[in-house]
Amino acid sequence: MRTQVCIIGGGPSGLLLSQLLHKRGIDSVILERQTRDYVLGRIRAGVLEQGLLRLMDEAGVGGRMRREGFEHAGTLIAYGEEMFRIDFVEHTGTPVMVYGQTEVTRDLYEAREAAGGIIEFEVEGVTIHDADRDAPYVTWRQGGAEKRIDCDFVAGCDGFHGVSRRSIPEDARREYEKVYPFGWLGILSETPPVNHELIYANSPRGFALCSMRNENLSRYYVQCSAHDKVENWSDDEFWAELKRRIPGHVAEGVVTGPSIEKSIAPLRSFVTEPMRWGRLFLCGDAAHIVPPTGAKGLNTAASDVHYLFSGLTQFYELNDAEGLDLYSERALARIWKAERFSWWFSQLMHRFEDQTEFDRKMQIAEMELLRSSEAAQKAMAENYVGLPY
Amino acid sequence: MRTQVCIIGGGPSGLLLSQLLHKRGIDSVILERQTRDYVLGRIRAGVLEQGLLRLMDEAGVGGRMRREGFEHAGTLIAYGEEMFRIDFVEHTGTPVMVYGQTEVTRDLYEAREAAGGIIEFEVEGVTIHDADRDAPYVTWRQGGAEKRIDCDFVAGCDGFHGVSRRSIPEDARREYEKVYPFGWLGILSETPPVNHELIYANSPRGFALCSMRNENLSRYYVQCSAHDKVENWSDDEFWAELKRRIPGHVAEGVVTGPSIEKSIAPLRSFVTEPMRWGRLFLCGDAAHIVPPTGAKGLNTAASDVHYLFSGLTQFYELNDAEGLDLYSERALARIWKAERFSWWFSQLMHRFEDQTEFDRKMQIAEMELLRSSEAAQKAMAENYVGLPY
Repeated sequence: MRTQVCIIGGGPSGLLLSQLLHKRGIDSVILERQTRDYVLGRIRAGVLEQGLLRLMDEAGVGGRMRREGFEHAGTLIAYGEEMFRIDFVEHTGTPVMVYGQTEVTRDLYEAREAAGGIIEFEVEGVTIHDADRDAPYVTWRQGGAEKRIDCDFVAGCDGFHGVSRRSIPEDARREYEKVYPFGWLGILSETPPVNHELIYANSPRGFALCSMRNENLSRYYVQCSAHDKVENWSDDEFWAELKRRIPGHVAEGVVTGPSIEKSIAPLRSFVTEPMRWGRLFLCGDAAHIVPPTGAKGLNTAASDVHYLFSGLTQFYELNDAEGLDLYSERALARIWKAERFSWWFSQLMHRFEDQTEFDRKMQIAEMELLRSSEAAQKAMAENYVGLPY
Repeated sequence: MRTQVCIIGGGPSGLLLSQLLHKRGIDSVILERQTRDYVLGRIRAGVLEQGLLRLMDEAGVGGRMRREGFEHAGTLIAYGEEMFRIDFVEHTGTPVMVYGQTEVTRDLYEAREAAGGIIEFEVEGVTIHDADRDAPYVTWRQGGAEKRIDCDFVAGCDGFHGVSRRSIPEDARREYEKVYPFGWLGILSETPPVNHELIYANSPRGFALCSMRNENLSRYYVQCSAHDKVENWSDDEFWAELKRRIPGHVAEGVVTGPSIEKSIAPLRSFVTEPMRWGRLFLCGDAAHIVPPTGAKGLNTAASDVHYLFSGLTQFYELNDAEGLDLYSERALARIWKAERFSWWFSQLMHRFEDQTEFDRKMQIAEMELLRSSEAAQKAMAENYVGLPY
């Protein structure tokens, strides 16, 4: 088999890249370790920046998102019984879109399949060969058979645990990491959201987030110990803890119900540099992870896809490798800004075990600065809605 | 002896409060542990906010400061070989004033003396009595004699190590503290400053600051170990280290010369709450300390003086205790904001021993945000020039 771009990973970044390339007549093949249903069953964030919306439109898959997604013009931030709003549109002219990552992935699968795109599922033992030479190829096992595809380029869209990053020799990459000493316990519940915009809450008991997917599907989170287990939390205990962490008048409005999903996510900041090694290009979680505070995960993957797509079209259409040569530098410049924002917002909103009373006072003072300073709100809003590509 | 307000401490806060009260016909006596010359020999920061300038004018001592001080419309921030400017006037309409604390103190002494104000020097064993009752008094020893003064109120302006804060029972106050694991080695040199505005520099070798008192008096600092000693640093070693920490083209312009003062200052954040106990009111360093990054020390003392002066005039002129009753709350609201700014700016500019490579990347990303975002610059400038009283 042969293709122009072999894409490792059939999550949203790989699918989006594949569909964008298809629109420009560039051929790609996607290799995915899991089944289609497994990928579609993953629950992830659902706050999309304008840059991602534009890419979805360009890929011809923005229709349902534009119809069914919810534009959010701002967000609420609570600390103790205090709450204030940051208006994104007022400060930046730009809203964000609430539309689940699962829906993004579904729309992309449908488009790839309608276009006859090749997606190989349940591939095992994926190995990238000769990425540092002129003729790379990828091998894998599938249904007992050994398979091979030759390609011009490999796009590593296979996430933090994928093979792509590890295919770059250790002495050719540098990794930066921060592991936060807590997790997010999240539930999905078929109840109306307590508020039409997200509420981020810093409470003395820890962080909480009131989010949603649509009018009858709520997503709530509470900060928990990194060693905690889902089994330790009944639905009733979850709802009771959530209500303790948000202002009383908000808690009164929470509609509870059975959880249809409950899980604990760790919080990690991670970046590998560079994001290119020869003909292998890393995209999204394969190269970097943000803590979920501020919902930058899928959005940072989208900016990588943008830079890589742009580099690949420049290469194939103009025979110019400049965009590919600058890919790592351009992608990383934006990634570090998103990493900073996610780190800052995480530091601001959570309880830390080693936090002193002074540190806690600094959080409150920063919250009050954000509440009272237009400039501080604008700086926050600019980062929340997404910096320009 | 009897007075209306007994002021413990003859530094700039005590002197300013005394002089302001005098202008409104309110009598005060100042008790100072050191000699006049000792107080005037202390080298401190010299960047003054508008609020302090207005208080100096109101106290009738702003003349020389207005003539000889230097208005700074902005500041420079460097990291590695990069440097950018934040324009305070563009973002806030307000400059800061460079005028040494020593000069502020001198002007205040001259005014107090010209007005016949009483300042008792070299007092020992100062003790505050009955501050929680209706008739407080203060005792001390001086030249072998025991002295006593009765008063309506006691203003504790005697600094971090003074007796005033310790006169409040431990169970009636709460302290918040952060000690930074490094110090600032500073020199004063009769050389022209390398730049007409301050340069704050974050370098891989640690923080450096290029500051000044006037056209021929420079003040430079380098971050050093908390355990370092002045004797470890020759002038030549200081200049060499300074030059390594600022951009090359700036280092080339540094005019070196013998130091006329060299000292190491620790960095500490500290706040005690409340700032009032009965008829005792804490002002300035007696209640709070900021690290010197951002020069908020004297300026936070000035805002305390403003709130206390305002409360005392309201009491004596209108027989209304509201301002005194709200003193602690009002003063602390502003103090915590200045504490946050000084903490944030210190975190941004210094090397920390336990800093990971990721933490270092976050510093650089924050520096680049500050460089590129007008909103972030405005938020910084608002805090640097001083939030409104």
